[in-house]
Amino acid sequence: MLTKNELKYIQSLYHKKHRDEEQLFVAEGPKLAEELINSEFVIKHIYALDTWIQKNPAIKVPLTEISEIELGRITNLQTPNEVVVIAEQAKTFGEPELPGHLTIMLDGIQDPGNMGTIIRIADWFGINQIICSNDCVEMYNPKVVQSTMGSILRVKCWYKDFESLEFKNSTPVFGALLNGKNIYAVGKVKEGVLVIGNESKGIREPMLSKITHPVTIPKLGGAESLNAAVATGIIVGCLVNGGE
Amino acid sequence: MLTKNELKYIQSLYHKKHRDEEQLFVAEGPKLAEELINSEFVIKHIYALDTWIQKNPAIKVPLTEISEIELGRITNLQTPNEVVVIAEQAKTFGEPELPGHLTIMLDGIQDPGNMGTIIRIADWFGINQIICSNDCVEMYNPKVVQSTMGSILRVKCWYKDFESLEFKNSTPVFGALLNGKNIYAVGKVKEGVLVIGNESKGIREPMLSKITHPVTIPKLGGAESLNAAVATGIIVGCLVNGGE
Repeated sequence: MLTKNELKYIQSLYHKKHRDEEQLFVAEGPKLAEELINSEFVIKHIYALDTWIQKNPAIKVPLTEISEIELGRITNLQTPNEVVVIAEQAKTFGEPELPGHLTIMLDGIQDPGNMGTIIRIADWFGINQIICSNDCVEMYNPKVVQSTMGSILRVKCWYKDFESLEFKNSTPVFGALLNGKNIYAVGKVKEGVLVIGNESKGIREPMLSKITHPVTIPKLGGAESLNAAVATGIIVGCLVNGGE
Repeated sequence: MLTKNELKYIQSLYHKKHRDEEQLFVAEGPKLAEELINSEFVIKHIYALDTWIQKNPAIKVPLTEISEIELGRITNLQTPNEVVVIAEQAKTFGEPELPGHLTIMLDGIQDPGNMGTIIRIADWFGINQIICSNDCVEMYNPKVVQSTMGSILRVKCWYKDFESLEFKNSTPVFGALLNGKNIYAVGKVKEGVLVIGNESKGIREPMLSKITHPVTIPKLGGAESLNAAVATGIIVGCLVNGGE
């Protein structure tokens, strides 16, 4: 049973301002709940239907049984899914380490579905560092969290002012541009930064002039562009696996 | 100015049943409107703001100027965008030609955003044939139309009963499975069928047992799967461009 205050509190976490203040986020559904429970993230509260509680008898965090009607009031999903978890946002985890790693940089990704899908792609290909420009959609936006399918728990995301970022001369900076090297001919890369641009404007200054390795996905048909997450999947996959 | 009947009629086209009956679909925004006007598709009516009409003075199809309030009533977008076009669905265009072509087959793609993005990927890589199982989301669903970004005008989609499909023995049938050949090592392919599975169940029978060339996108991290459209982009890109 939910009190009126609890209901209001949970609903407030669907607004960035309140998430920032409380340093919390919301994740929904049995899959994400299970991954959160088995992760190092701190769970503040679980709200779940009786059906979920019966399948998860050994829960050691604060837990409230709710009805389907109550779930319908606190969910952000079109099809509510058994359980809503309130968890603490990851604490600061140091600075990204560029040498020896592949790192994704997102220059103004706006769509929460794209952001979540890119985090999932990074996780699939074993990349665990993403640096986002300050105007990217927030990683704890509920639509981002859901579309990562749990990868948000494994990939570290930083938000940075791109104006003040400096790269060492030795760091290769890849970016998809119109006249770059064919990405299918680049071969495997063990270290570097891959910049993905905004959905409509592409890669903007100041990042644009920092690109040392322009790459291109060859276009053979009529489409003007590829979706940002699809382009990320293609380029990351080639950089990680290419040339085998 | 919209009459009450026009308003009702346009709104009815956001339902599949009425689209099927009328053999029409709705496309929104200046980009799609421009592509439709320059395509072979038959436009039935354009509803547009004064701003759009001034930029497009030579329109030769039935056109009604509407107010922003009226646009708000007939749009399916969160951010209405100047113009709504009602167009005729493509007439039957013969059967898909498998020999000598790459063809995408979609086995139960449910999400309209995935479907639209896959049509856009096909168009980018010069593939203009997609065969959908009958339980795929409808290609003229407004969310599919919008997320193709115009590619729906260039890529042919058929809906088929997969139970009764027969392939010639010579047609290679590619499908992403857990234990297939590394897709980055497959090399360029000029002819064949690529099967993409349902978002949660993957490739199902009867297609599963028709796959002659299982392929795999190597997984290096923790994500359980990739988004269906991202996987399509990666596999199609490798089949079209690989081994260069």
